[in-house]
Parts: sequence; C-alpha cells; structure tokens
Amino acid sequence: MQRSREGWHWTPGTGLQAGIPSIAVIEPSQLIQHPKDVFDVIVIGAGYTGLTAARDTSTSGLKTLLLEGRDRIGGRTWSSEIDGYPYEMGGTWVHWFQPHVYRELSRYGMKDQLVHSTDYSKKHNFFTFKTASGDRNMSHEEEDSLFARAVEKFVNVDGNLGRTVMPFPFNAYWNKDVLKYANLSVAERIAQISHDLSSDERHAVEAFVLLCSGGTTENSAFLDFLRWWAAANYDYKTLLDTIIVFKLKCGQSGFAKRFFEEALASGNLSYSFNTPVARIDSSKGLVEIRTKDGQIFLAKKLICTAPLNVLEQIEFNPPLDQAKREAAALKHVNQCVKVHADVKDPEMRSWSGVTYPHNKLVIGVADGTTPAGKTHCVFFGCDANHMHADEDINQTLGAIKEFGPMEIDRLVFHNWSKDEFAKGAWVWYRPGMEVQYLEALRKRQGPVLFANSDWAAGGWRSFIDGAIQSGTEAALTVRQELRPGSRTSRL
Amino acid sequence: MQRSREGWHWTPGTGLQAGIPSIAVIEPSQLIQHPKDVFDVIVIGAGYTGLTAARDTSTSGLKTLLLEGRDRIGGRTWSSEIDGYPYEMGGTWVHWFQPHVYRELSRYGMKDQLVHSTDYSKKHNFFTFKTASGDRNMSHEEEDSLFARAVEKFVNVDGNLGRTVMPFPFNAYWNKDVLKYANLSVAERIAQISHDLSSDERHAVEAFVLLCSGGTTENSAFLDFLRWWAAANYDYKTLLDTIIVFKLKCGQSGFAKRFFEEALASGNLSYSFNTPVARIDSSKGLVEIRTKDGQIFLAKKLICTAPLNVLEQIEFNPPLDQAKREAAALKHVNQCVKVHADVKDPEMRSWSGVTYPHNKLVIGVADGTTPAGKTHCVFFGCDANHMHADEDINQTLGAIKEFGPMEIDRLVFHNWSKDEFAKGAWVWYRPGMEVQYLEALRKRQGPVLFANSDWAAGGWRSFIDGAIQSGTEAALTVRQELRPGSRTSRL
Repeated sequence: MQRSREGWHWTPGTGLQAGIPSIAVIEPSQLIQHPKDVFDVIVIGAGYTGLTAARDTSTSGLKTLLLEGRDRIGGRTWSSEIDGYPYEMGGTWVHWFQPHVYRELSRYGMKDQLVHSTDYSKKHNFFTFKTASGDRNMSHEEEDSLFARAVEKFVNVDGNLGRTVMPFPFNAYWNKDVLKYANLSVAERIAQISHDLSSDERHAVEAFVLLCSGGTTENSAFLDFLRWWAAANYDYKTLLDTIIVFKLKCGQSGFAKRFFEEALASGNLSYSFNTPVARIDSSKGLVEIRTKDGQIFLAKKLICTAPLNVLEQIEFNPPLDQAKREAAALKHVNQCVKVHADVKDPEMRSWSGVTYPHNKLVIGVADGTTPAGKTHCVFFGCDANHMHADEDINQTLGAIKEFGPMEIDRLVFHNWSKDEFAKGAWVWYRPGMEVQYLEALRKRQGPVLFANSDWAAGGWRSFIDGAIQSGTEAALTVRQELRPGSRTSRL
Repeated sequence: MQRSREGWHWTPGTGLQAGIPSIAVIEPSQLIQHPKDVFDVIVIGAGYTGLTAARDTSTSGLKTLLLEGRDRIGGRTWSSEIDGYPYEMGGTWVHWFQPHVYRELSRYGMKDQLVHSTDYSKKHNFFTFKTASGDRNMSHEEEDSLFARAVEKFVNVDGNLGRTVMPFPFNAYWNKDVLKYANLSVAERIAQISHDLSSDERHAVEAFVLLCSGGTTENSAFLDFLRWWAAANYDYKTLLDTIIVFKLKCGQSGFAKRFFEEALASGNLSYSFNTPVARIDSSKGLVEIRTKDGQIFLAKKLICTAPLNVLEQIEFNPPLDQAKREAAALKHVNQCVKVHADVKDPEMRSWSGVTYPHNKLVIGVADGTTPAGKTHCVFFGCDANHMHADEDINQTLGAIKEFGPMEIDRLVFHNWSKDEFAKGAWVWYRPGMEVQYLEALRKRQGPVLFANSDWAAGGWRSFIDGAIQSGTEAALTVRQELRPGSRTSRL
C-alpha cells in the first residue's frame, strides 16, 4: 500500500516513525494532460469540500484541475490501515442525521459500512472518572446520566434546552434572541450555572465541551456548542450518536476515494498532489494560480477550500477583503490532540474514561478490536494543557496510562497543530467570531469562491457533512455560471 | 398561472370544479428536438424520483428523455396556489433528518423556505377527541402525552422502544429478530397490547397509525410503522417533527420545479407531458418505448418510476419477473383521503382533532392562515371508512363538520384513489409484503431500472426523501454504465 509522509506510528520495537500507510495517497501524484489549457475551474484542496466540488464540476462536463499540497486526499479526514485495521487520523464519525454525508454514503451504496464504535459486552465495562475531586469508576449508565445532566444544564439558557433560542439548527439566528449569546465563552457560560453544578457535573461538562471544541474554556464560543446540540435534536444521547458512535468499516479514506474515483472516471479531472499554492491572482479576466514550485495554471473560476487557519498563507491579488483577513489572522481555537493506542487487554473494549483537568489527554474511549485481538482506544486532548504527541513519546504514553494501567502495543496519530495545511482540527470559533465573520468568510471575490466546512451554512458546520455541503454549493454555483454542455438555449 | 386538469376545487359559490392552478404544469408540454434519436436514457415519470434521475443524467451530459402521463411534474407531490396560498395535494412535510430531501433543499438555497405548520398562539388552542368513548376537548399537551404514551406502547416490542430490534432505520433487517414481525398487521399488534391500552389510547394509536398507513388496521403492516419510528429516532415528538410539521413556503411544486429547471438548463433534456407509456420492450439491444398515443422512442437505458399500484398497467417485454408481477397485483394499501378546507374563523389556527372510527375523516389539523385571513385546515381519511371526496361534496363537508362547527369557504383536494397514475398515496405494505417483495421490486431487468420511493432502500421509504434517493441511485448507475464525456481512459 502507498505510504503518506504524514502521520506518526510508534511501537515498543520500532520507536516513533514518521509516515503511515494510506489508500488516500494517490499515485501517480500528477495527471495533467494539457497544463497550458485554461481550465473551467481549479479546485484548491482535496479534502471533502474540494473532492465534492471537483467531482460535481468534472462529472458535469467542466474541465477541472484539483491542486493539493499534501500527498493524499481527505484533508483533515484520513485513515491509515495498519495490520488490517483502519485508524482515523481526523474526522471519523458520521450519522444519518447528517444529510450531506449520509446522502453520499447512500449514493455510493456504503450504508452497510457503518459500524458501531461502542461495545459494552466485555469485562472492563465501566467508565473511569479521574478529576480534581478524586478518582473512581462508574457504570456507563451512571456516566451517561452524569454527562446528560451536566450538558443539559449547560445548554438550558431558555428553560427549553435551547429549543426556543435555536429552533432551527441550520438557520442558527432565526430567533434573534440567540445573538445574546454571541460573545459568551464556554467558561462564562459555566460561571453562569456554577451555583447549580456539582463538582462532578462541572468536570463532566468541561471535559465534554473541550472534547468538542479542542480549545480552552476561555477561548471556545458557547454558540458553537449550542448549534451542535440543536443539530442533534437537543438530546444528549442523540448528540453522542451523531458525533462519536458510527464510523466506517472501510475507513474514511475508503469513502473519500469514491469521490475522487468518480471525478476521475468522468475524464474531465486533472490533478496534482504535493502542489501547494502560493498565489491566486484574479485581477485580470482569468484566475491565475502560481504554485510554490513555480507552476502557473489558468482557469475561469476558482474554488479555494483552504481552511481558516491557513488561509493567510496564500497570497491573493486582489487581496482578501478586510473581514476575511481579520478572521484568518484571529484563527479558530481547535488544537485537538488525537492519539490511537492499541491496548493488549481485549476486555478493555467496553471501557471509557475522563482525566481532567490535570492530564494532557482529557477523554479516552475504546473504539474497536484489531485483527490481532487488541483493544483499539482513542484519546483526545485539547488546547488547555496541550501537548505535541510526537515530541515526547514518553509524555504521550504517560498521558494514556494516567487513565489506568494499560499495556500499549502501538500508537498512531497525526499532529494537526503542526500540520502546515490545517494548523488545527475542525473549526471552533472564539466568542463573538462566528457572528462577526461567518458571512464574510462565505463571500466570494469575483471568480474566486471560498468553500470549507469551517464556514458551511448548515447545522453541521465543522463536520464532514459541512464540507460536503460547502463543496456541493460551490460546484453548483460554478456550473450555473459556466453552463457546461448546453446545446439548446434556455426556454 | 397554468391549470392542471387534476385536483378539485369547491366554494359555496362555484360548487365543485375539476382542475386547479399549479406552477407544476409545464408549458410547452413537449420539447423534443430529435425524437428519432437514440436517447442515452428515458425516464418514465416526473415525480421526485424521475425528476432527480433526469436531472442527474442530463446534467452529466447524457441525452435524456423524460416522459410523463400527467400535465405536470411532481407525481404524488404537487401544490396548487390559490389566492396566494399553496395547498399541498399530496406529499407536504420535510425535515433536516431526511438526508436526501434536505440535501436538495440546502443545495438549492431553499432552507429559508421551511415554515412551521403549527401555531399554538391563537384562541381555539385545543385538541378535539371524538371517539366511541365520547367527545371532549383537551390541551395540546394532553394530546401529545396521550398519543406519545399510546404510540410508545405500540412500538415497544423489545422493552427498548424498538431500538433493539431495529437499531438502524436504513438497514431495517440488520437485527434478524425484526423478521419476527414481518407478518404482523397493525390490528394484530394492537391485539397484543390491548390489555395495556385504555380506550383513549387505543383510539389514539389507531387513528395515528391509520393517518400514516392510509389503509385499515387489518391490511396495514406493523413493520412500516416501526421503520418510520426508527427513522424518527424512536421518539414521538421527533416523529411528528419529521412527518407533519415543516412545509415549504413556496409549495412543493416550487421545489420540484428547481429539479426540472436545472435539468432543462443542461441542454440535454427532452420531455413530453400528457404522454402515458403503453409498452416497454427491452428484448432487443435498445429499449423501445411505445406511448399510448403511438409514439415510439429508443434509448440505451430506461428508468421506470411508475409506482407499485400502477406498475401492471405498463406492458413489459420481456415481461416483469414473477415477484414484481405478484407485488404489483397485490398492491399496497394506502388509500389516503386528504382534503384542505379554508375555515372562516382565524382563531381555529391553533386547533387539531380526531374523529374515529365513525367518521369518514380521521384527523384534522390547522395548517396555516390564508392571505384572506382564513384558517387553512387539512383533513385525512383512510381506507377504513373510505370516501371519494369528489363524489358527494355534502358528505365531504359533513365529515369535516363532524370535527366541530366550522364555516367552510373553500375545499381543495386530489382524489389519489382514482388517480390513474398512482392508484393510492405513499406506499404502505400489507403484512409480509415488504420482506417478501422489496428486494425483487428493486431488481433491474437488463437495461430497465426500477426506481421509486415505494421500494427505496432508506429509512424514509414512502417519503419524498425516498423518491430522491431512488432517483439519485438510478441515475448514478446509468451514468457509471454509460460513462458520459469520458475523454481519457480510466487509470
């Protein structure tokens, strides 16, 4: 199998090694038959947004060039298959309540690929809760009840669990009352309800929200969480189901590859990996792209899918508008740390835990059983008490063992904070940032469209769903403007 | 505005008149530039299934011919705008948990078209419950509590509200235990729990399930209801939200027209309305279509979207396989009667009611306020105690007034039972029929594909969502087989 230069792999025998195998790596890495042609559209970035956009434009007859800085597709979502088991480096879980991603799973006949991350049938069937209030284990029923109670207090700004202030998750400002919470941080919201939170509840809600935001309680906006909650039908169980329960047997890269292959089969897709873009010039009639290695490409339209935290690395002429520049300089807060560990004991399959706030990893959860019979666990940290998992592997192993005694046979991870094409994980805004900049981030500049889950207009912004939505919309706009294949005039 | 010959309209002044205005009527009714050409694909039927299929094939460069027996698009879903108000003749409500329909609403930028059918802010804010146990009014909170309790007993076959036997709504037989209920009728399920049902609960659950099935308790399968329930997250409030709360300001035909217009703009769509198909011959290399008026068309592939209850009206050569013929002869049970009434009193806007089992209409609910300030109510009947609303308008008016005193200024409806292209409403199987025939109904026969919400493979079979899903899949299959626009060979 191809290997990506991205990702990290550690075993006791090999030590830490850079690069992991992945079907997301595309070979040959470049296929451009007529590089001097004017393309109908150039898509920058081969994450789900760019893959969807390039698929939809190429299959509708538009000559499309897909440029990607990495050696692989998938952006912040990709999987590595090691010894027959798929490890998800980034985006993982999906659900049929996420319309855009589910429509694609259904369309590609992949619904049977959905598997359950949870299995409570094994011996170590409990939840470890180690906080400033002490250490103990509890049942998963007690865990769910504690977290549901705490999260419900957190979102209950209106006495109706958020339903009144945000009745439409996909149209978050429908009720203008919600704007009262625009500048509220997670820490400030917790302060508002602290009189009503037990110590356990406070640790539970902080750990859970930090798992979602990847930031700190001070720099994470409350509003993003309220939207997730609304999208998940104002229900804790449904929220878990939609964000951390159902993953793909074939790995996310098996899914992403379907988009790429469909685009390729159209015969209208050219592409180049390992090709970061340096400059986008739309000051003349056509859009001119200069890559970092000096290649020049021309197109009628451009769909730029660079995420918020790296948007300022591309030079634009004319420059990005003021609001986009401000948002790109501020950046979102998600510096999620995600580490996979193979744990020797197969009975750990039913385990989960929280260690907070003292530990470098906040949440751990058993996620599968490898073909070798090990328990695959996944651990999450955030910007509060951040670590770079690759810099000190003993610190990383220690953070995992803080959850409890475990014999660790393997680690796999991707350091998203150091990733030059992401500089962070899924979007989570700073207080005030969403309301101030979201519209501006979506705004096109002439022939240049900006598409990314980071500013998707749906309930599932920051999810794979938002990426597909954003790519779908951008492709439709381009198609409507270029009208491919039209052989009769419009009636 | 164009008028369809379909639908009925009654006012005290005009009496009953056939035909109502609709933007779903397409003019000119035929546009075929080269009728002798071999089309890449012919799509039979311009409901959501056929519209989606024709859009996806035509926009990907395939020469597509859309044939429709009616004078309009939309099939079992269409709206009539009368005096500035959209009346939905068939399919009406949608929700963001329905992935295929919501993906399309999002893609067309129509999310802001969603409006709430319910408004509990007016004076007549109560629920009328007239059953064999007597007549009374109750609050909507009491109504919801009664119906939720009754429906939960109905679906609770596993002590876990159905979650255990049907954990995946889109893959209904994932747990084979569910097949124990394959042959169970609604009446039989009610008999199983009758010891635990109050008289109110029994009337409530029967009325509710008959609203869903349009049949009788004896001929309606329990399994269909369990799937709806699972798709709606095993929750009564979510079930209401997904099936009867959110409709489109512009009417369903405003939505359907977007599909048609996108297909037309591709320049690859030919079409002919008022063109029922008599015969489909795929015995030679190409598919030959003969219309009832004697026209012949040829294509490489055919997507037939005729619903189950009219499938046997088309002659196939080679004939439909045995299983399809059996299912088409058996037919599904939904003979839903749906009647819109403008009621003079604007305070009725907050009302709903059930009259069961003595009345010809079972459920009524206020659904909007017309520009003239009338309350628009919608009433549903079913095959139990069936009526043809057009045959005796005094009976129809009487059935409405049985819910309570109302001054009725207008009726609008479509008689789906007499409709030659539907012979019923959305699909609801007989006990045993789904498990026995579903796979067979989906099976293609050579170049002929069968697509319809009646046998869609998702959680929302029988909904608009299932239609779009089915059309999407059929178009993708055809595209993959014909590979339009391919200019390079596959890598």
